[in-house]
Amino acid sequence: MNDSAEDHAAPAPGSLRPGGRTARTRAAVRDAVLTGLSEHGYPALTVEYVAEHSGVHKTTLYRRWGSVEGLLADALDLAGEDAWAPPDTGSLSGDLRALAHEVVEAFGDPATGAAPTAFVGAAFQSPRAAEALHAFYAERFRRCEDVVIRAVARGEAPPGTDAGTVVRAVSAPLFLRLFVTREPIDGAIADQAAQAVLAAVEAGSFVPA
Amino acid sequence: MNDSAEDHAAPAPGSLRPGGRTARTRAAVRDAVLTGLSEHGYPALTVEYVAEHSGVHKTTLYRRWGSVEGLLADALDLAGEDAWAPPDTGSLSGDLRALAHEVVEAFGDPATGAAPTAFVGAAFQSPRAAEALHAFYAERFRRCEDVVIRAVARGEAPPGTDAGTVVRAVSAPLFLRLFVTREPIDGAIADQAAQAVLAAVEAGSFVPA
Repeated sequence: MNDSAEDHAAPAPGSLRPGGRTARTRAAVRDAVLTGLSEHGYPALTVEYVAEHSGVHKTTLYRRWGSVEGLLADALDLAGEDAWAPPDTGSLSGDLRALAHEVVEAFGDPATGAAPTAFVGAAFQSPRAAEALHAFYAERFRRCEDVVIRAVARGEAPPGTDAGTVVRAVSAPLFLRLFVTREPIDGAIADQAAQAVLAAVEAGSFVPA
Repeated sequence: MNDSAEDHAAPAPGSLRPGGRTARTRAAVRDAVLTGLSEHGYPALTVEYVAEHSGVHKTTLYRRWGSVEGLLADALDLAGEDAWAPPDTGSLSGDLRALAHEVVEAFGDPATGAAPTAFVGAAFQSPRAAEALHAFYAERFRRCEDVVIRAVARGEAPPGTDAGTVVRAVSAPLFLRLFVTREPIDGAIADQAAQAVLAAVEAGSFVPA
C-alpha cells in the first residue's frame, strides 16, 4: 500500500487507529468492498462500484490497491486486524460448542454470510485472494488455539494435544456442508461437531504419535 | 437433455451404456469440459472450447445443454453415475483412513485436483453448478455410509451411529484445508482425521441423543 506523506498530512483527531485519513479511507473502501461482495459476489465486483460506494476516486483506488483483487485482499487483511478472540466459557466443551456456533452465525444466514462466502469463492479465481484468505484463517485458527491451551492447563485435554488440528476439526464439518456438499447448517450440527471433537480430544487422538 | 429419436438412430454395437451415439457424445462433451476446467478453470470455460475439444457442434451443445452451466452440471451428473464404492478394508479404522486418503489423492495433486476443484469453485457462481455439486456429494457420502453400516454390524461402532455424519467428519478437515484455510494436505493429516473420528465413533459421539 502507498503510505505516502500526503496520506498522513491531516491526521484526524480522535481517530481510533494511526494513519488518520489513510485509515478512514481504507475503512470506507473496505466497507464498499463488503457491500459489493454481499450484493453482487466476487466476479461482479468492480473498481467503479467501490469508487461509487466509498466516495474514493477511482484513480486513488487504482494507485493504492492496483485492482479488484488488491481491494479484496486488503479488505480481508483489514478484517484480520480486529480484536476477535475465541470464546472463553470456562470449559473445553463450552468453548468448542461456541466456536462451532460462531460458524453457523457467520455463514448460516444468507445475508450475513454473503461477504465471507464471496471471499472463500474468490480464492478459487484469484491467487491473491487465496493468499489473503489463507492469512486470515491461519491467524483466526491461531487465536482459537487458546481454547485448547486453556483446556490442557485445566486438565481437560491431554498434554501435547495439537491445538491447531483440534480447532480446525470443530469447524470443518460446517465448512464442508457450506462449500462442498452445499447442505444447510444449524446449531444441532454445530453441537454434534463439537461433541465429536471433544470425545476425540479426551481419547488423546489429537496428541501426535 | 434432448433424447430425440435422431440420437438413437444408430446405436453403436458394443456400446457400454444404453443410448449409443447419445452416450458417446455425452462422454466426449464431459471429457472436453473436464479438460477445459483443468486447464482454464470455470469462469474461462466456454461453449466454443467444449465444441472444439469434443468435436460436437456448438449448435448441438446449445440445443442439448443450453449453456456452460448446463455443460458443467451434466459433467458432474455423469461423474456421479460411475460405479465408485467406498473402500472395504475389513475394519472401520482402515476404511476411514482409506476414505481420507482418497481425498488427498483426488485433490492433493494440482494436476488431478484441478477439475474437481473447479467444480467446487463454480458452485460459488452458478446455482445450477451448486445443485449439481450438492447432488454429486450427497450421493458420494450416501455410498460411504456402507463403511459405518458394516462397522456397526461387526460391533466396531455403537448401534445408531449416524453414518452420514461420520463419513462427512472424516473428509471435512481435508476440505477445510483445501478450500478455506488454503493449507497443504497429506497422508499424515488424512490419518489424523481418520483417527480422531474413529475415537469419537467408539465413544458414541455420533449416536444422536
